Amino acid sequence: MEKTLEQISSLCKRRGFIFPSSEIYGGLNGFWDYGPMGAELKRNIRDAWWRFTVQWRDDVVGLDATIIMNPRIWEASGHVGGFADPMVDCKDCKKRHRADQLCEEQGLKLVRDGKAWKLPEGCKCTACGSANLTEPREFNLMFKTYVGPVEDDSSVAYLRPETAQAIFAQFLNIVPTSRKAVPFGVAQSGKSFRNEINPRNYTFRSREFEQMELEFFIRPDEAVELICGHVATLADNPDLSGDPQEDWGWEVWHRYWVEQRLKWYRLAGLPEQDLHLYWQKKDELAHYARACVDIEYAFPFGVQELEGIAARSDFDLTQHQKHSGKSMEVMDDRLRLACAAKSDEEKAEFKAKVVADWTARGKDAAAAEAFCDGLFQGRYVPHVIEPSAGTDRLALALLCNAYDEEKLVDSKGKEDVRTVLRFSPSLAPVKVAVLPLVKNKPELREKARELYRSLRRRWKCAWDETGAIGRRYRRQDEIGTPFCVTVDFDTLGEEHPELKDTVTLRFRDSMEQVRVPISELAAKIDASMEL
Amino acid sequence: MEKTLEQISSLCKRRGFIFPSSEIYGGLNGFWDYGPMGAELKRNIRDAWWRFTVQWRDDVVGLDATIIMNPRIWEASGHVGGFADPMVDCKDCKKRHRADQLCEEQGLKLVRDGKAWKLPEGCKCTACGSANLTEPREFNLMFKTYVGPVEDDSSVAYLRPETAQAIFAQFLNIVPTSRKAVPFGVAQSGKSFRNEINPRNYTFRSREFEQMELEFFIRPDEAVELICGHVATLADNPDLSGDPQEDWGWEVWHRYWVEQRLKWYRLAGLPEQDLHLYWQKKDELAHYARACVDIEYAFPFGVQELEGIAARSDFDLTQHQKHSGKSMEVMDDRLRLACAAKSDEEKAEFKAKVVADWTARGKDAAAAEAFCDGLFQGRYVPHVIEPSAGTDRLALALLCNAYDEEKLVDSKGKEDVRTVLRFSPSLAPVKVAVLPLVKNKPELREKARELYRSLRRRWKCAWDETGAIGRRYRRQDEIGTPFCVTVDFDTLGEEHPELKDTVTLRFRDSMEQVRVPISELAAKIDASMEL
Repeated sequence: MEKTLEQISSLCKRRGFIFPSSEIYGGLNGFWDYGPMGAELKRNIRDAWWRFTVQWRDDVVGLDATIIMNPRIWEASGHVGGFADPMVDCKDCKKRHRADQLCEEQGLKLVRDGKAWKLPEGCKCTACGSANLTEPREFNLMFKTYVGPVEDDSSVAYLRPETAQAIFAQFLNIVPTSRKAVPFGVAQSGKSFRNEINPRNYTFRSREFEQMELEFFIRPDEAVELICGHVATLADNPDLSGDPQEDWGWEVWHRYWVEQRLKWYRLAGLPEQDLHLYWQKKDELAHYARACVDIEYAFPFGVQELEGIAARSDFDLTQHQKHSGKSMEVMDDRLRLACAAKSDEEKAEFKAKVVADWTARGKDAAAAEAFCDGLFQGRYVPHVIEPSAGTDRLALALLCNAYDEEKLVDSKGKEDVRTVLRFSPSLAPVKVAVLPLVKNKPELREKARELYRSLRRRWKCAWDETGAIGRRYRRQDEIGTPFCVTVDFDTLGEEHPELKDTVTLRFRDSMEQVRVPISELAAKIDASMEL
Repeated sequence: MEKTLEQISSLCKRRGFIFPSSEIYGGLNGFWDYGPMGAELKRNIRDAWWRFTVQWRDDVVGLDATIIMNPRIWEASGHVGGFADPMVDCKDCKKRHRADQLCEEQGLKLVRDGKAWKLPEGCKCTACGSANLTEPREFNLMFKTYVGPVEDDSSVAYLRPETAQAIFAQFLNIVPTSRKAVPFGVAQSGKSFRNEINPRNYTFRSREFEQMELEFFIRPDEAVELICGHVATLADNPDLSGDPQEDWGWEVWHRYWVEQRLKWYRLAGLPEQDLHLYWQKKDELAHYARACVDIEYAFPFGVQELEGIAARSDFDLTQHQKHSGKSMEVMDDRLRLACAAKSDEEKAEFKAKVVADWTARGKDAAAAEAFCDGLFQGRYVPHVIEPSAGTDRLALALLCNAYDEEKLVDSKGKEDVRTVLRFSPSLAPVKVAVLPLVKNKPELREKARELYRSLRRRWKCAWDETGAIGRRYRRQDEIGTPFCVTVDFDTLGEEHPELKDTVTLRFRDSMEQVRVPISELAAKIDASMEL
């Protein structure tokens, strides 16, 4: 079915998924709250991502850093100098626009003029139609605050615009305490903040949002070559579905993470055909990036980014090394031992090759030599692959994907529409609803309560004893509960002893109902969870 | 044993629990990051609190609101006007102090002088000893920022200093969408920010911290009386361990939550004797609060607050009603039906009693009458009980409580000290370590990997194949892993077929080792989790 953002946001408001922040005070543009169901959905996403990324792997550890950090981090990362959007004011109606979006809305393209931006011919204010616009000016997207009792330049701090930088800043603490060696990763999820000029598309582009980021540190290709004698590239057709291999170069690692992240989105329930890969073109890449792929989803408002997966070389750690004066090199025992076994001739030959390669790419010969000398001792600054995902964007994609209005015809030929959220069981806010068929029979109710209490130890469950059973099923359909369990007279086994301690298990998607022993329920629910 | 904060913080740094934020740039005073182990510990606390507070109850739903909200929320709550600490500057050495702490450090007490504060006689700068101090000035603790591209008064916003207010601000969205009726609660956990003048005691008083807050909405006592004909108080000796009862007044509800929260801390592993209740005295209470209890823990640096549990009357919702112009009243069907059955005489008598009661407490007769008229129609602004806990404070308390240095004497009489974190299994960062006895026997290693892969689907596990088995146990002791599982030659059953598929299960606290079939492991681990 065709779905509109209006249908989805209306259900989200009505069933407690998403509310405008501070709505009783007129809201706050670009800020959204998650209600009772939305809070459970986001918890499930966050937890499943952590399991998939940290718990189920040997080579990733977690971090939980602060939102406000020493501002020098943002100088090193380039965010203080460069994290800006071009902004344009209409001199007539005073409306402020993001220049690139203003152009895009009119089928135009913002013009790059050296370091500055220029509006293209014919660009107008989309609010009032005036052509009386200012030239684009850069606007830094970081929220600024002051730490400590004095408000001056020395106390300025920023709300992090991404969670990633904390991982680089804590790299030197994590390496020795985690007992991990390169290749390994550090994962973090948490709030980030960007003072967007025009927040839009519901929760898609908001000013406060949640990220799930991984920095996966790998050996420079040169180190792989010294250890393995060669570097595997995609041309070698490596098996990306099994365990990572020691001879993988950055290109294979990058592609491995693209595949891992696609697997994650499939397990989260997004259909293959709605996921798109966008490989950034050479001229779109940041100068330090070797490759960047966006995983996009077909939202009702267009195909838009869920996650970016960038091969960022050693740019980030090197920047922090420069700005902090602390060496970000690791000692790689495998590499050190491999080099110790090499002859001086082999080393000289290798060095000559690296110098030729680096200088051909416009880099410094002396730097290449120093790099090789470090490698020979087992030292280098790790390179990094960064899969960076938006939690709110995935929540929205899941809501868009799950939303369905199903036309039903009952046995008497009466038509009806069923609204249902087809979440994957692992991410559904409520896993099981326990429904006593009637509420005025105490033994039956008590039996149902007992089951409910035992299931909710492990899973989020709902209890509903109000209204006809069909209506109760529909209520659960609307919030995406995959399983409904009805406790009825047969559960008590009074008339049919063979049915004692069985219940009706009703599946959300097929609406099929089966009779199941209570003792088998937990295993059935457990088996449905893929994440 | 006596424990010092230095011992604990040193282990926390060494094993990846807690790092200073931005340490490579000299840190940032009052900000702390959680490393790989700390991130897991905090996740476990957060998740266990959610299960205990939301998932295992019928009457609490969750919320996940933004950190930046419409600033009018903080006007309504009183934070813009009043959320301030008195601050004093030393005119000689320029050091800035929190006035109350400065006095306390010298065994003095800050003097209240009408609305202002005054330093007591003899108060000196603790940094340089000078008595040349400024008078105390109020300093608002909220971090300020600007939302949108213009920095002026109209765009000022604050980082929330508590998560609670979002619950009140979203009350009108939550009531109709959650299908809950008073009494019910809304829980939220997340980051809050306070620009403390002097952050101190490690992570205890920091500027960015995490809270776990519950607002539990109850009927005004007058509504309880109309429904039940009486209001149960503590004098009635109610059973607080079972399900809440309809006749409970605010006093019983408040005490019920104190008991619930004490239960939570006991389940989290804090011993009864280290938990203290501090009942705030009449003159310490905020004007709207009816009672407030602090649950305190005996930290190495003193007995300090983990959580406050306040009975806040209808103050918060009424404030938001006034400031937003939106009615915060709920419609209570039980109350409406109870009142519909009452005669006019009964209502008049009831109203007279309420008016007498309110005016005796210095309140307005007209307000009391309007309140009664609302009640008779089933309407009122709910009252609230607020258990408000600090996640970082609990993490620190758990670390302090868990830390132990145990003197051991081996069979040869050699003395040794074992450092161990005695976390409760539910909150331990790693639940199980899987240890292959040797790493050079592929079948044995593969058997261990298989077990590891199956256990980590559900629990955070560690894999360690390096070093003597005794050293590996000690490594796990230091991070508080409750169970170690060793896969050895017997597991393969080559020599002793009856031992096939059994492993050695080693318990952290007792260091006892038992032989257990692999098939029984999951149930044993599961049974150890109380939260």
